[in-house]
Amino acid sequence: MPKALLTDLYELTMAYSYFKRGLNTPAVFDLYVRPPVPYRRFLLFAGLESALTYLENLRFSDEDLAYLESLGLFDRHFLDYLKDFRFSGVVWAMPEGEVVYPGEPLLTVEAPRIEAQIVETYLLNTINFETLIASKAARVLLAAGPEASVVDFSPRRDHGEDAALKVARSAYLAGFDGTSNVQAGKRYGIPVVGTMAHSYVMSFPDELTAFRAFAEDHPRPILLIDTYDTLQGLEHAIVVARELEARGRRLLGVRIDSGDLPELTRRVRARLDEAGLGYVKILISGDLDEYRIRDFKAAGGEAWGYGVGTRLGTSYDLPALGGVYKLVCDAEGPRIKKSPGKRTLPGRKQVWRGPEGDLVALREEVHPGRPLLQRVMERGRRLLPPPDLAALRERTRSRLFALPEEQRVIDRPESPRYPVAVSEPLKRLQESASA
Amino acid sequence: MPKALLTDLYELTMAYSYFKRGLNTPAVFDLYVRPPVPYRRFLLFAGLESALTYLENLRFSDEDLAYLESLGLFDRHFLDYLKDFRFSGVVWAMPEGEVVYPGEPLLTVEAPRIEAQIVETYLLNTINFETLIASKAARVLLAAGPEASVVDFSPRRDHGEDAALKVARSAYLAGFDGTSNVQAGKRYGIPVVGTMAHSYVMSFPDELTAFRAFAEDHPRPILLIDTYDTLQGLEHAIVVARELEARGRRLLGVRIDSGDLPELTRRVRARLDEAGLGYVKILISGDLDEYRIRDFKAAGGEAWGYGVGTRLGTSYDLPALGGVYKLVCDAEGPRIKKSPGKRTLPGRKQVWRGPEGDLVALREEVHPGRPLLQRVMERGRRLLPPPDLAALRERTRSRLFALPEEQRVIDRPESPRYPVAVSEPLKRLQESASA
Repeated sequence: MPKALLTDLYELTMAYSYFKRGLNTPAVFDLYVRPPVPYRRFLLFAGLESALTYLENLRFSDEDLAYLESLGLFDRHFLDYLKDFRFSGVVWAMPEGEVVYPGEPLLTVEAPRIEAQIVETYLLNTINFETLIASKAARVLLAAGPEASVVDFSPRRDHGEDAALKVARSAYLAGFDGTSNVQAGKRYGIPVVGTMAHSYVMSFPDELTAFRAFAEDHPRPILLIDTYDTLQGLEHAIVVARELEARGRRLLGVRIDSGDLPELTRRVRARLDEAGLGYVKILISGDLDEYRIRDFKAAGGEAWGYGVGTRLGTSYDLPALGGVYKLVCDAEGPRIKKSPGKRTLPGRKQVWRGPEGDLVALREEVHPGRPLLQRVMERGRRLLPPPDLAALRERTRSRLFALPEEQRVIDRPESPRYPVAVSEPLKRLQESASA
Repeated sequence: MPKALLTDLYELTMAYSYFKRGLNTPAVFDLYVRPPVPYRRFLLFAGLESALTYLENLRFSDEDLAYLESLGLFDRHFLDYLKDFRFSGVVWAMPEGEVVYPGEPLLTVEAPRIEAQIVETYLLNTINFETLIASKAARVLLAAGPEASVVDFSPRRDHGEDAALKVARSAYLAGFDGTSNVQAGKRYGIPVVGTMAHSYVMSFPDELTAFRAFAEDHPRPILLIDTYDTLQGLEHAIVVARELEARGRRLLGVRIDSGDLPELTRRVRARLDEAGLGYVKILISGDLDEYRIRDFKAAGGEAWGYGVGTRLGTSYDLPALGGVYKLVCDAEGPRIKKSPGKRTLPGRKQVWRGPEGDLVALREEVHPGRPLLQRVMERGRRLLPPPDLAALRERTRSRLFALPEEQRVIDRPESPRYPVAVSEPLKRLQESASA
């Protein structure tokens, strides 16, 4: 996949100007999300793997260079420079799956200025998006609770192919149980899950015939019971469950995708239990998100699992994260931008997680707690192999459900925000830094 | 790019069941958006090119098949079938760039049932997203007006790499003038545009030095004047404009990305005109969308061009389109789904655009006006070459600005919706169709 041109043109026109002027001493850029972020009490950092893979493999192909030449903006020397271009810098970053907050550097690039500039667009694209989705997935999980099974059903509404892959991975990283996306299953080893569509049921003379066929052809059948009438569909599912029992098999579950879900699931649960089918699980779907899952549970709904699609895959209530990538230091010293409402924090930084909250400090400071930013790349090579995604998911999931109660609530805007402070030395530097 | 596995698992498990049962007679599926769609008076259809390219090239690779085998869900016969799988069906569709409405079939697939089922997820993914973005772009254009230059600045906030490409193409298709996305420029021949970032200005000892350097290195410079103080930045830009004039060149424009944009642009325009620099254009950016452009103009702001990013690329006020893909006909005749609130229209259809509005009818009916759905693929091969994107953009753009006034308004929910009716024969079929 050729990614070098997945960049805003201005990265290249700026790089060209730096190149012509020999302005290529090291520069330091911080990637962070400006506070406040609406509807989110915390963010779950994701996208580092994509970022490191990009940085390690960044090359301009001959085709890329021919296109750039055709624009008439760049001279031969610069195109020759791009031909041999490699990212050779240092990267500090939060670990994927870390709970992070707006205002904290999530990733820092230290590289010759041209390199640091050229990688901006891709790094923002992938970290903004993957962090956005992991953060949304975390909220869905918190609403569903640690006992529920939650899976990604979003591919048909995700923003293209790459988005579908990244949604599946980010949601799994946060703690989801699986995805319907087969490509994501193959690429990342995520468990793939699926039931049936209404069109399947409609492809048979009647619903019971469809259910029997599906149960015969699938080892762990989940039957979609709302194509015609949900409670009648349930009776057909019960017939099939009994037929399976007679052959030593079990119906895994039923799925409901429409109607009054709290009421329907209560009735379905009661009827299944009454029929001696306590083991048959109820999976619900249909425009679910953290708010609807919370409301469903508050209304007495009973579900074992949730298939979450559109509103996860597009982070529906907050469809973009405003991550930015800002020059904070170069050979001349710390740098600061003063645009109204967009002041930057200068210098190389570390984030400390202490008992009182987080502290954004200069890198050389030492504070109580745990430093969150890690050196992950040197001379353009990653320092550690890619993480084991399944193990990372376990850790992230446990961390989420262990968050303090005030961090775990879905809304309640009046409750206090997690404290993120700026150290005194960093404040003094910001005051004194020349533009 | 391997796309065959970009599918929900259930498409394959259903296909497997059809395969085992020999249920592979032709079936007809309609892809459409259920009404109502909030915040949109119309949709602009896009994504057909992606869809046809997908259908023509759909193959399961050996690697794909090995992965599917590893799932333990499918037998050898089915995997052999997938090895030779090709889409062999017929496709009817709206032309890209057509103004369309919820409830109208946008694309119809007629193919052996297994083929028609397997392609569902990808078709929904790409048509939902590209139509979503083209429709958003159309609104941004209507707000900006036919004289303004509007460009896509979204890559850093788009949902991954494929999204960034599709946003650039869909916005250009709607009538945008260009994109900052270099990859999209290369792939689709879209004009690429760019200015400079704050970090460029900060990479020089002072702003004036930065502006001089940029103007020297770029044939058509646009200077970003809000890094420190916008009005002071403007004075620096004026110095550079005069220096360029002395060398027979011209400053193309200035960009403002923050602050009180209506007030600032008025003052900048007045100062430029007073300085005899009436030709220097003003480009604004910074979380723009159709609402903010409307408000900016209503507040007396003066801009020649708009750089639109996050809110275009994520369709911020409506981040997903709820397009669905439903079985409407098979060898048994017309089919209908009766789930609450989700009743389908059975049978093969045509949409007629007449003087009174649109009419969704059975395909064999004839009505006054223009039939919108075209036969675009037969036996899995497209019937026409890909459109000339630049020419298609011209037509779409002209059509947009020629829409009746009540279609062109950005909001005003009380005004009448464009009428979309269902023909009497189709209504009768819906009444009578068996499930």
